This record gives sequence, structure tokens and C-alpha cells, in this order.
Amino acid sequence: MNKEYKEKVALKNKLAKYYLGQAKKNGLSDTKLLKKYLPLELRNRFLDRGIIIAHLDFERVADAIANHKPYAIVSGANPSSALHLGHKAVFDLVSEYAKYGGQVFIPLTNDESYVDGKVNSLEEGNKNAHEKIIPLLPRFGLEKSVVFTDSDYPEIYVMAMEIAGMLDCEAVRMAFGDKAVKNVGQMFYRGGVQIAQILLPQIPKYGGPKPTLVPVGIDQHPYVLLARDIAKRMGLVPPSELVIKLQSSLKDPEEKMSKSKQGTAIFLDDSKDVIKKKINAAYTGSVSKLEDHRNLGGVPEIDAAFNLLLFHHPDDKLMATIHADYRKGRLTGGDVKRIATDFIVDCLIPSV
Amino acid sequence: MNKEYKEKVALKNKLAKYYLGQAKKNGLSDTKLLKKYLPLELRNRFLDRGIIIAHLDFERVADAIANHKPYAIVSGANPSSALHLGHKAVFDLVSEYAKYGGQVFIPLTNDESYVDGKVNSLEEGNKNAHEKIIPLLPRFGLEKSVVFTDSDYPEIYVMAMEIAGMLDCEAVRMAFGDKAVKNVGQMFYRGGVQIAQILLPQIPKYGGPKPTLVPVGIDQHPYVLLARDIAKRMGLVPPSELVIKLQSSLKDPEEKMSKSKQGTAIFLDDSKDVIKKKINAAYTGSVSKLEDHRNLGGVPEIDAAFNLLLFHHPDDKLMATIHADYRKGRLTGGDVKRIATDFIVDCLIPSV
Repeated sequence: MNKEYKEKVALKNKLAKYYLGQAKKNGLSDTKLLKKYLPLELRNRFLDRGIIIAHLDFERVADAIANHKPYAIVSGANPSSALHLGHKAVFDLVSEYAKYGGQVFIPLTNDESYVDGKVNSLEEGNKNAHEKIIPLLPRFGLEKSVVFTDSDYPEIYVMAMEIAGMLDCEAVRMAFGDKAVKNVGQMFYRGGVQIAQILLPQIPKYGGPKPTLVPVGIDQHPYVLLARDIAKRMGLVPPSELVIKLQSSLKDPEEKMSKSKQGTAIFLDDSKDVIKKKINAAYTGSVSKLEDHRNLGGVPEIDAAFNLLLFHHPDDKLMATIHADYRKGRLTGGDVKRIATDFIVDCLIPSV
Repeated sequence: MNKEYKEKVALKNKLAKYYLGQAKKNGLSDTKLLKKYLPLELRNRFLDRGIIIAHLDFERVADAIANHKPYAIVSGANPSSALHLGHKAVFDLVSEYAKYGGQVFIPLTNDESYVDGKVNSLEEGNKNAHEKIIPLLPRFGLEKSVVFTDSDYPEIYVMAMEIAGMLDCEAVRMAFGDKAVKNVGQMFYRGGVQIAQILLPQIPKYGGPKPTLVPVGIDQHPYVLLARDIAKRMGLVPPSELVIKLQSSLKDPEEKMSKSKQGTAIFLDDSKDVIKKKINAAYTGSVSKLEDHRNLGGVPEIDAAFNLLLFHHPDDKLMATIHADYRKGRLTGGDVKRIATDFIVDCLIPSV
């Protein structure tokens, strides 16, 4: 058997197993029942295509929607860089679930950028947020959200202090690991501010206790757990969690898109040429020899271009066709790259 | 020799040695030079009577005063209880040094009360501050100070976050000990908020960098050191420190007045009868048998009533007389208690 193909299949299986294992290990619920029982209007590409891999108490939010009760969605962004397609995917998902009347909260965590050393000051993060993120929110229909940078909304710190008094440093260290809470700012951010952000929709100013949806990557699961504990102690509704796969790096299916690793992310303000070049150089799920590819087929799950389509293309039927054709070798890796390039350029570059 | 007397003298020596040792160990400057060179108007009972035991860079503040330059004094209070004579002593000292135009800052640390578990919520501490502390500040001529409770002044948290990003948790743990930074709130308070309070007078809003005086008990010395380090990194003037003896407990010369230990403190709103009873039951520097006392004399330094006079009575000559007469046995412990009671009642109970 073709060694290259074998490796790609092994990688695909490894990733699938990783997500399954993480969901199980952390006591999360899988999405089978959701897919079976959720009303059609709460289905979307994220759920149907397995981008949402698990959840905790999503039913609480689904019930609120079904019964026209208030609910909220919290999804922050770290303003250490411009927005990339990974952010777009999350904002699209937020937008999907917000359309039944959910109140959206978008904390822009310039304090997180700063305490993690990704910017040199709170001001730098604040400037990024105001120049590179806030102006783009209307693209996602999120301009009516509660949007703030943490340092411009210091009330969040008062709430964080209240929470921080209930949490031992040791518990936060266990949840996040020593490195993530090395300095005092990281400790207070992860053991206070981040939790306050999730619980913020439930303060009297925003209408009191209500189901709250928090979409996160699996690595952020510990802080949802902490927030759920704190919610109970404060008499609030424990927030519901959607665990999502994060948009993978263009270069490595095991990594996330990241501004700090060059060439791994497509930014919302990249030019047509840059997008083309980046996708062209991206990791492929197809073996090198065309002849072998025609015989064996591709591995779409680990193909960077296919994943761009999977996360962003709205057309389910088209996606099924591309998946099948690529899988069977009827489409080449190059074909998928071309389709993805055209689609992403269309998405991101405003036509004149 | 009388065993009781011997023990009392030993205790006096032990305390003197403790303060000297602490000052040396921590690299503080002693007050000898200050007493020699400070202009008379900067002398006061706190310096002359050894209540100020050491300092760090006090010259910087003295220079600002001599040259009519801006300077500030920061002295917070923990609103976990009503004010007692220990607080009065510190506020009197602040008042002394403020009279040459110093800008006074009085952070009321309801977050500290909360994270240390001395009140159940930030609100409870806030209420204490507004009911039990702020109304009394005019008594000390401090009504024009910058006064706030931390949670009502959340800008302090933004500054604290900036500082917290520069300080490793480990450094804070080393400075304060594990127990004092057990929960995340304590970590952020001691490794962020408290330092922000000391540096607050130097932000642009209050006129920028300037010498700042911080009177503290020896146990608070580590946080002044941290604040001095941070000040340098932020391009601010390292704050100057006055280390003071704190008003001793009525029951034990080795302890401080504390609301949490009953009968150790006289509160500013105690009634005449309560004051009388507390002083009457206080620890004395005199041996039990009158005959022995007349022979051996008393040990004023460890006498609770004498210490009340030492910290609060403005008349240096009278104090010298009382000291000498008590020391020689001409005044008894009971006499000193009576003098102290009359004086403290006069101080605290408004005459009708």
C-alpha cells in the first residue's frame, strides 16, 4: 500500500480519535442526540459537519429558544492580531445561534493579549480591537452585540474580583497548567476575568439569570467548568458549552490557525494574491503522484483547502459532492485548492 | 530580683530587638540621621518617640517639601471593621506630613476585606467604608483627600492589571507567604491592586511622577519593595517608605490592635464606659505588688495605657514626665491607666 496515503489516513484517524477522547475524558455529551432531536432551524453546518464535536447542557439554550425565553451567547476575541478565518468561523456560528433573539456579548480581551505577552501594553491591544476587530463585526451581523475591550469596561474587573475571591490559585493552576498562569495577570485573567465574561449576561443590568451559550475550543473547556461551578455559587444559571473544532492551520492539520505562526492563517484583510498563494502552499490530503491519487482517492478531513470550505461554505449539497469526489480521487488536491481559493476570495474581497 | 519585673524588662528588650532586627534585615535606614538633619517642622511625635522605626528614601519626600514641590501620601484602610486607635495613629501621622501641601490618597480596600474573608461581599466592605470610615475622615483633616473604595474605583483594577502582567505569582508568594495569596483574589490584590494604590498618585490624572510617602507596618514592607521595582519599570518615582510601630493590643504588647481579637482595640465610637473598662483591663508594665513597684519602677514601653498616650498625646513635655515618673515608680500602673482613660475619653467623646 502507498506509504504516503497510509500516513494521511493514520493522521485523519488520530485526529478523530483525539477529539472523541477529549470529549469523553471531559465528560462532555456527544452531538448524536442533538442531531436527532433538535428542530431543523437549530441545525446548521457547524453541527451537521461535525465542527461542533460535543456539548454540555446545550438543551438549556435550545429550550429557551423553543420557548422564546431570553438567552445569551458569549464569544470573546483576543485582539493580539487581526481577525482570520478561524475567528470568522466562530462569529458565523455565534450569528447562527443568535438569530432567535439571543443577546450576544463579545469581550475583546486586550488584557489577555497583554498578560500573555502578545502585545506590549493594554493600549496596544485596545487599539488593535478598535482598528482590526470592531469595524468588521457588521460583516457577521454582530454590530448590535455588547462589545467592549476589557480595560475599557472595568466593571468586569469588579465582578472578576468577586469571583477571584472564591477560587484558589491552586485550582486555577490545575485547570490551566503552570505555564498559563505564570504571572499575576494571567492568574487573575484566567481565574477571574474570563469567568466574569461568561457570567456577565446574567447580571441585573442585562436582565438577570439566563441560559448562556459559550462556544469554545477543547483547550478552553477547563474554564467553562470553573465558570459553571462559580455560577452555581452565585445563584446563576451554569453556562452551556459548545465545543468546536478550531479552524486548522494551513500547514498542519494538527495545529490551529494562528497569527504567530506565519502562513498558517488567512486574515480577513488578506489580498486576493496573498489568499491564492497561501492556499496554494497549504497542506493537502492528497498523495503526491496524480496516478496514485486517482486510484486511492484523497483524505479530505486533513486537507487544509477542504477544511476552509467545510468551515465556511454554506452549500451542504456542494460540500457532499466535493467530499465524495475528492475522497474517490475524481477531484485532485489542486482542484480543491482552486475551488477553495475562488470561494474564499469571493467571501473576503468585496466585489467592486 | 523580682521575677515578674525581670520578665517585663525581658519583653521590652525583646520587642526593641525585634524592630531593630527587622529594620536591619530588610535593608531599611534607621531614623538617627533624620532626627539629626530634618528641619524642625518635619519632626513630630511619631519620629521623636520612636513610633517611626525606620524608613526608605524619606529624603526624597523631605526634599520635595523643602523645595515646595508636589508630593503625595498614600495610606489605605481596610474597611472590615470600624476605625480604632491604631487607625487614628496612622491618620494623625498622615495628617502631620500632609500639611505642607501633600496630596493624600486613602484607598478603602473593600476588596482586601473580601478576598481575605473578613466580610462576605464587596458590598459589605463598601458599606462599612461609607458608614464607618468616610464620615470620620474630617476628624483628621483628611476630608479633602482622594478617597475611594476599590470596587467603586475600577480604574484601579486596570492599572493593577498592567502591573500584574509584570509580576510572577512566585515572586508575590515569596514576598507575602503562601497563606496570604491562597485565592486568586488575594493574589491579584497583593500582586496588583495594592501596588497600583501606591503608584496611583503618579498617573497623569493626578499630575504625573512625584515622590510618594507610604507609612506601613513592618509586615507590609514586602509590598513596598515590589511597588518600588514596578515603579522603576513604569518610569515612575520609587515610593518612599516610613515603617511604623503599629498601636499595640490592649492585652498583649507583642500583638497589634485588631477588631478580630476582642478587647484588644479601642474603637473611635466606643462609649466612655467601654473605654474605661477596656483600659482598666489592659496589660500593664508594672509589677503586681505596689511595694515592689515603688522600688523597681514600671516598664512603660510595654504598658498598654502608656502606649495609648505615647501614640496619641500631643504634649512632649508631659509625656517625658509620665515616662520618668512611671519608670521610677512614682506613678503606678493604675495612675497611668487613669491618665490614659481621661485623655482618650477627651479625644474620642465629643463634649456636649
